[in-house]
Amino acid sequence: MSDFKTDLAAIATQTDAVMSALLPAGEAPEAKLYDAMRYATLGPGKRLRPFFVVSSARMFGVADEQSLRVAAATEFLHSYSLIHDDLPAMDDDDLRRGRPTVHKAFDEATAILAGDALLPLAFEVLAAEATHASPPVRCELVSQLARAVGAGGMVGGQVLDLEPPADSTYGDVARMERMKTGALFAFSCEAGSILGQAPVSARAAMYAYAMDMGLAFQIADDLLDLEGDETTLGKRVGKDEKAGKVTAITILGVDAARAKARSLLDQALGHLSAFGAEAEPLRQAAIFAVERKA
Amino acid sequence: MSDFKTDLAAIATQTDAVMSALLPAGEAPEAKLYDAMRYATLGPGKRLRPFFVVSSARMFGVADEQSLRVAAATEFLHSYSLIHDDLPAMDDDDLRRGRPTVHKAFDEATAILAGDALLPLAFEVLAAEATHASPPVRCELVSQLARAVGAGGMVGGQVLDLEPPADSTYGDVARMERMKTGALFAFSCEAGSILGQAPVSARAAMYAYAMDMGLAFQIADDLLDLEGDETTLGKRVGKDEKAGKVTAITILGVDAARAKARSLLDQALGHLSAFGAEAEPLRQAAIFAVERKA
Repeated sequence: MSDFKTDLAAIATQTDAVMSALLPAGEAPEAKLYDAMRYATLGPGKRLRPFFVVSSARMFGVADEQSLRVAAATEFLHSYSLIHDDLPAMDDDDLRRGRPTVHKAFDEATAILAGDALLPLAFEVLAAEATHASPPVRCELVSQLARAVGAGGMVGGQVLDLEPPADSTYGDVARMERMKTGALFAFSCEAGSILGQAPVSARAAMYAYAMDMGLAFQIADDLLDLEGDETTLGKRVGKDEKAGKVTAITILGVDAARAKARSLLDQALGHLSAFGAEAEPLRQAAIFAVERKA
Repeated sequence: MSDFKTDLAAIATQTDAVMSALLPAGEAPEAKLYDAMRYATLGPGKRLRPFFVVSSARMFGVADEQSLRVAAATEFLHSYSLIHDDLPAMDDDDLRRGRPTVHKAFDEATAILAGDALLPLAFEVLAAEATHASPPVRCELVSQLARAVGAGGMVGGQVLDLEPPADSTYGDVARMERMKTGALFAFSCEAGSILGQAPVSARAAMYAYAMDMGLAFQIADDLLDLEGDETTLGKRVGKDEKAGKVTAITILGVDAARAKARSLLDQALGHLSAFGAEAEPLRQAAIFAVERKA
């Protein structure tokens, strides 16, 4: 697993440099907005989505210089979603990655607006010529990211997470997780194949891999919420249970949920079977996603 | 002025049809999200931004079928900004266009999320092939809209509106208004020239027209807030004053603010001097923006 952790850390450092350049410090009087955007995006975090963008792009011969811009866009989106999810009207969290959430460190209006500004920034980055020489490629990135984070993706998933259907089945939970978390993971992996103008079959394999890996990742996250260590995780544990959230665990139980994560991992790896050694980083990432302790 | 009002109403009807088609009703369990998005976008409203998109596009020979999609995107953006501006953490308004605001008609989480979903939907619409056959044109639309509504535009303007600099000058207020309202008006007018692949000089003229018209429009809005009729406006009057907002009126006084709006109108019309009869709808719109009673 050491290769994966080395890669993850290296890509995180590079992504942070690109994000920092795309997020100027901002001058008074609106400096607070930029400060909040930087606080949310440049703080601690695994930078998993950037890892998937850059690693998938390498599979299709795309230079890191290009994929890192898309990586930054996915991290802007992920950060915005965390800021808004943490708001008092949503999950009402005051701790995230061991630090006060944005509405606690700043204020609620600034938190809402920092998220609102990160969202278009991601699209601005994708549409810029520096991201890819081909305009159709840039349009495709914009389209796919927009779908992943809209009502049919991340936002719809958050609605379902806040108000799950009565008598939720495992299918309901899986659908919610695929929308809320899976869609942006899927974009992150598909983005490499879009940048590399890969054949449709390769794009479909990347997408399918990411959807299964993302769901496995989420179940692992739920298990950590139940059993993990607060200090290692940098956030409160047991909050799903306290909040009465419906998860794979509440429906399947711990053992069956763990088995489900393992079988999703196998499925995810199966989607990569057409690829050779170039897919090794993604294979290791999927294993990490399920077996991690933080 | 009858031509303008007829055009405005006709374009509004067509835009609503396009928006409605782009916003499916949505099925349970996440129907509430789609209901809130429809409530926010398809309710009463002038649809000024759609008017500017379609009218400017006609100047450059662009079919309404294309420009109406961009018109819908600007209205999605405008609606999202109103939903979030009305939130308790921002302006805390419970009435908008004579109806309960979205967080009152639904709830706060749904209001935040409806806005969050409208934002990417706008970019999805712009990036789609149906909007324009040329990918570079679609990328340019995405780039310009993203800039207009990001930290350097609408969101930054809202930050300044909520926390104006101490000892604000008229210049500070004008900068805030150009960011908060002007940038999306400017995009709406520039979009027609982008769709029509017009020369740079024409694009610059459209942009400059819209920035001056937008600021004049905003001063007129502030005057209406002070002097208007609550029933006609469908929102509370005098709320700027109560909220201690800094506006052109609080700095310049009523008479000088009115004179400023008139001189901005002249400037706006001046930017259209290179155009002939095809710019007549935009000339009438600018006059309406300043002289309207609602």
